[in-house]
Amino acid sequence: MSAPIRPVDLAKAYRLLNHGPTVLVSARHQAVDNVMAAAWCCALDFDPPKLTVVLDKATRTRALIEGSGLFAIQVPTVAQLQLTQAVGNASLADDPAKLAHTGVELFTMEGHDLPLVAGCSAWLVCRLIDEPHNQQAYDLFIGEVIAAWADERVFRDGRWHFETADPSLRSLHHVAGGHYYAIGEALKA
Amino acid sequence: MSAPIRPVDLAKAYRLLNHGPTVLVSARHQAVDNVMAAAWCCALDFDPPKLTVVLDKATRTRALIEGSGLFAIQVPTVAQLQLTQAVGNASLADDPAKLAHTGVELFTMEGHDLPLVAGCSAWLVCRLIDEPHNQQAYDLFIGEVIAAWADERVFRDGRWHFETADPSLRSLHHVAGGHYYAIGEALKA
Repeated sequence: MSAPIRPVDLAKAYRLLNHGPTVLVSARHQAVDNVMAAAWCCALDFDPPKLTVVLDKATRTRALIEGSGLFAIQVPTVAQLQLTQAVGNASLADDPAKLAHTGVELFTMEGHDLPLVAGCSAWLVCRLIDEPHNQQAYDLFIGEVIAAWADERVFRDGRWHFETADPSLRSLHHVAGGHYYAIGEALKA
Repeated sequence: MSAPIRPVDLAKAYRLLNHGPTVLVSARHQAVDNVMAAAWCCALDFDPPKLTVVLDKATRTRALIEGSGLFAIQVPTVAQLQLTQAVGNASLADDPAKLAHTGVELFTMEGHDLPLVAGCSAWLVCRLIDEPHNQQAYDLFIGEVIAAWADERVFRDGRWHFETADPSLRSLHHVAGGHYYAIGEALKA
């Protein structure tokens, strides 16, 4: 990894998601790795940080998470637009080489047996908080964030610096059907 | 209302939230109206459309929603930056004239006994799906969207048009402490 990845204080981890980016969800179980895209991921609590993510029953990533009780949420960048769209549309069930075919490069962080996607701007490792009713009725999963890192070129000192970082590091915000917006101008109220 | 407000097909209502904007939450109960800001609001299902929103126990808006079983989610614009920050920081419990002091102008849509905030770009009327465990343990509320409208200058034909609309109509994406980003450039994967 050439990007300068630094730990993020857990009390500020919600800020990685607060502006509503589309994310990548990754998981590992019994030596199977997968990555999917999700627009429906949201902060849920500050400290300890929690988040929600909606995982359709058809996804293989969901089955891995139900098996391992762990997952990672990561924030992809404008440079990863095609990768994000590709992992959101291909299924490991149809293509066992999905990750290779969609250009995903994985890495791991010491102490966490989870595949992380290289080139993202932020990573949050989550422990699944088992809530069977939410999972069955709403496809809604709750995770407690137990570790977080960010690329310090674009997130440092507890906040994003999209306005001064390279535009290729901006977050993606999916609308539908491959139409996205990048995050834009900084505003101070 | 001078803005051209048009109904949004319920099957496409999720697109109003899919890009992760900070929203305003409004509710009415026993002749009391209130409006708060929330960054933690997320689509949950397509059709019928559902959404989640996190409402702290200290908020008066939460009590109104628990009383009436109805709420509205609306998407504020760059032109409403100060209003959004103000309703997110003032409490009706401290200031009974909060809405007047924060510059909120309300209107209603026929058939829905709910206060809607003028000047937003989209409005979603929701029926609370009562989930007491989520509400108590996580401050997490689930709503079914039963009606939606948008300002057709910026959302029409089932999608946002931020890239061609006036920049003052862009959505707000809060990070923390009054730091926001506007939504930015359109990208097609």
